Amino acid sequence: MENLENSTDCKETVSPLNNSGSLLNSTVSRCDGKAMGFVLVHAGAGYHSESKAKEYKHVCKRACQRAVDRLRAGGMALEAVTAALIELEDSPFTNAGTGSNLNLSGEIECDASIMDGKSLNYGAVGALSGIKNPVLVARRLLSESQKGKLSAGRIPPCFLVGKGAEQWAISHGIPACPTEKMTTKFSLSGYKRNKRKMELAEQVETKRKRPSFEHENVFGCLEPVGDMVEGEENNLASLDTVGAVVVDREGNVAAAVSSGGLAMKHPGRVGQAAHYGCGCWAENARDISLYSTAVSTSGSGEHLIRTMLARECSTAMQAENTHQALLEAMQNKFISSPFLAGEDCVLGGVIVLRCCTCGEAQRSEDIQALLVEFLWSHTTESMCVGYMSAQDSKARTHISRLPPGAVAGQSLAIEGGVCRLGTVSD
Amino acid sequence: MENLENSTDCKETVSPLNNSGSLLNSTVSRCDGKAMGFVLVHAGAGYHSESKAKEYKHVCKRACQRAVDRLRAGGMALEAVTAALIELEDSPFTNAGTGSNLNLSGEIECDASIMDGKSLNYGAVGALSGIKNPVLVARRLLSESQKGKLSAGRIPPCFLVGKGAEQWAISHGIPACPTEKMTTKFSLSGYKRNKRKMELAEQVETKRKRPSFEHENVFGCLEPVGDMVEGEENNLASLDTVGAVVVDREGNVAAAVSSGGLAMKHPGRVGQAAHYGCGCWAENARDISLYSTAVSTSGSGEHLIRTMLARECSTAMQAENTHQALLEAMQNKFISSPFLAGEDCVLGGVIVLRCCTCGEAQRSEDIQALLVEFLWSHTTESMCVGYMSAQDSKARTHISRLPPGAVAGQSLAIEGGVCRLGTVSD
Repeated sequence: MENLENSTDCKETVSPLNNSGSLLNSTVSRCDGKAMGFVLVHAGAGYHSESKAKEYKHVCKRACQRAVDRLRAGGMALEAVTAALIELEDSPFTNAGTGSNLNLSGEIECDASIMDGKSLNYGAVGALSGIKNPVLVARRLLSESQKGKLSAGRIPPCFLVGKGAEQWAISHGIPACPTEKMTTKFSLSGYKRNKRKMELAEQVETKRKRPSFEHENVFGCLEPVGDMVEGEENNLASLDTVGAVVVDREGNVAAAVSSGGLAMKHPGRVGQAAHYGCGCWAENARDISLYSTAVSTSGSGEHLIRTMLARECSTAMQAENTHQALLEAMQNKFISSPFLAGEDCVLGGVIVLRCCTCGEAQRSEDIQALLVEFLWSHTTESMCVGYMSAQDSKARTHISRLPPGAVAGQSLAIEGGVCRLGTVSD
Repeated sequence: MENLENSTDCKETVSPLNNSGSLLNSTVSRCDGKAMGFVLVHAGAGYHSESKAKEYKHVCKRACQRAVDRLRAGGMALEAVTAALIELEDSPFTNAGTGSNLNLSGEIECDASIMDGKSLNYGAVGALSGIKNPVLVARRLLSESQKGKLSAGRIPPCFLVGKGAEQWAISHGIPACPTEKMTTKFSLSGYKRNKRKMELAEQVETKRKRPSFEHENVFGCLEPVGDMVEGEENNLASLDTVGAVVVDREGNVAAAVSSGGLAMKHPGRVGQAAHYGCGCWAENARDISLYSTAVSTSGSGEHLIRTMLARECSTAMQAENTHQALLEAMQNKFISSPFLAGEDCVLGGVIVLRCCTCGEAQRSEDIQALLVEFLWSHTTESMCVGYMSAQDSKARTHISRLPPGAVAGQSLAIEGGVCRLGTVSD
């Protein structure tokens, strides 16, 4: 059992379950705060070395703070989740925005999407170059689509890719940013190292049409496990799609995700971060019997697309027991998904938030008493998360790890907490 | 009531239902054939003028024939659906491949995807220029991903966009095709006419930040209703995403879709045809209690994305009554979807196929007795479909229309048939 770092004494430990061979790491944390909202962020499911853990936690902490700043200023969930994403994208340590993985051609191409649980509007960009904060373009696509039709009755786009997306962004006032400014020494050195490994692997391929995965390991894997590079501390550029989920004072939820994609991906490859239902999901409760839910995912893009993991987890969150529901979703809809039947190593992670109005009901017109349940789960070696309510003085951060001996891609860890907003401190 | 053109005397008429204000046009056709498979194609949900109906029916007929040729030659569902799509893309009258709508810059950018119900593998391309048959690139992505990992452990992409997709296609032996060769006199004249309309509309916009839809109608709409251009017979370039669903002799299903997208779309805009779960869906029955289902959609891309209509219809097809299930899905998950709450005109169409092994069970190792139910439904003025079993001498085609007085975008038509394969003529 591993506890949440910085967790308060209201933490509650739940017995780990063992289901279908999964190893579970299960902790529940509780917090209280005014009903101004709550944010949960992730800096990726992958592998986070102990030596670099501090940097990942710091960026999660800052991202939470940015979101909470917006919530305290009266901002809605959509604004807060955007603020968190900008901070996560700007970190040179994450694989999103600045510091993104380079593709086969040595270029940065980013995916990002955002969803508003209130309007259910959505915006996404794929394979986008030359823009510092891809989430801002996704956000702008979302807000433009809310303004109604374009000239001559054209329906506004919700998903733009490539050069067209870049041009659209610039024409909507989002400044261009040269790729060089977004490339870091980490992403560049990672690219050079990966290129050498590929060349070595491809020398062997002259003897075989397509070498087996086992054989390639002789030369070391670029990215054997999605965003993860096993044991390669310096290869930070290969790590960590980012994302966030937020609930605001009115109980609206929003979710966002941003990624530089797989290292050495083919130009034009679009991963789950730009795929509706796969990278993020946010849906306000449509009636009193339902929960509002928000989800953001990380990991191996193709696996997350084919399982539509964000939406599946959101749907699962309508069950009574969040912990059990997420466990079953990760096990049955991801690790053992029929959509990934040929895959023996299914790598990804999710952050999940669900909330409902507490029994005490509304305290005023603006401020509701909200019960927020937040969880994360991953099949990767580790996942870095941070969370904060608008009343907290600072964010809590945590690197969740699979228990020793658990096999990444086949086992999962699940942890979470409960936050009751507006019922204690008002 | 409108009957299926060319339908046989085994046709059965079902009373039209009236549900939530929808007007229904409901016909069921039956056919029998050897268990070598069945194909259903569409040349788009939109508006098909009587004068051009013949050309649309012809292309559907040829597409069915291509698919059936492959089935008769022992081809599987995936091969047959690809063959149908190539024929549909090659027609200068459809908005896919050759003859696609031009975007704002006067260029062709195509979306396409394909899904194999047996392996549940998927391939998609978005905003792809310079390739005559986008479905071939989607198909190749699908088959490449089945070969396992790329060099140095990289996961193969399932979705490529833009220039990167074009480069990938060419490097995989799919020949480049100059845009000029894919542009037709129809698409070019449509582009010029639309450009003039936009210029007129935008002159008015200098007085308003964003003119209302009603106002724009003064100048005539480019595309008030997705793929549809009301009453504009010559504007063929604005019509008709294409797609197909197939079941083969082993009961495997496959689905595909291809589109040139909205006329005058922003470069880089990707519609439902390249979106997992939105443009097409195919899923073999995983156990005896389930049906195999395949779906392909057409219409307003953003609406079809946000409602994930292909997957929703596939899920609905597990209900006992296909007709009622599709009706409810179109009504509740599309026209009245909470994901399109702000939209008063929701335009799209689907073709759906579901099948199961008949009670008589297997006749030999290869040939099963299959019961195939096939339906189409649309909220657009019309939808052009064709269908054929591998035993038929020719395809049947039909332009389904909303009943007189029904309001496009708010009402729907639904029709279909049943085909029993391998139980009569063996």
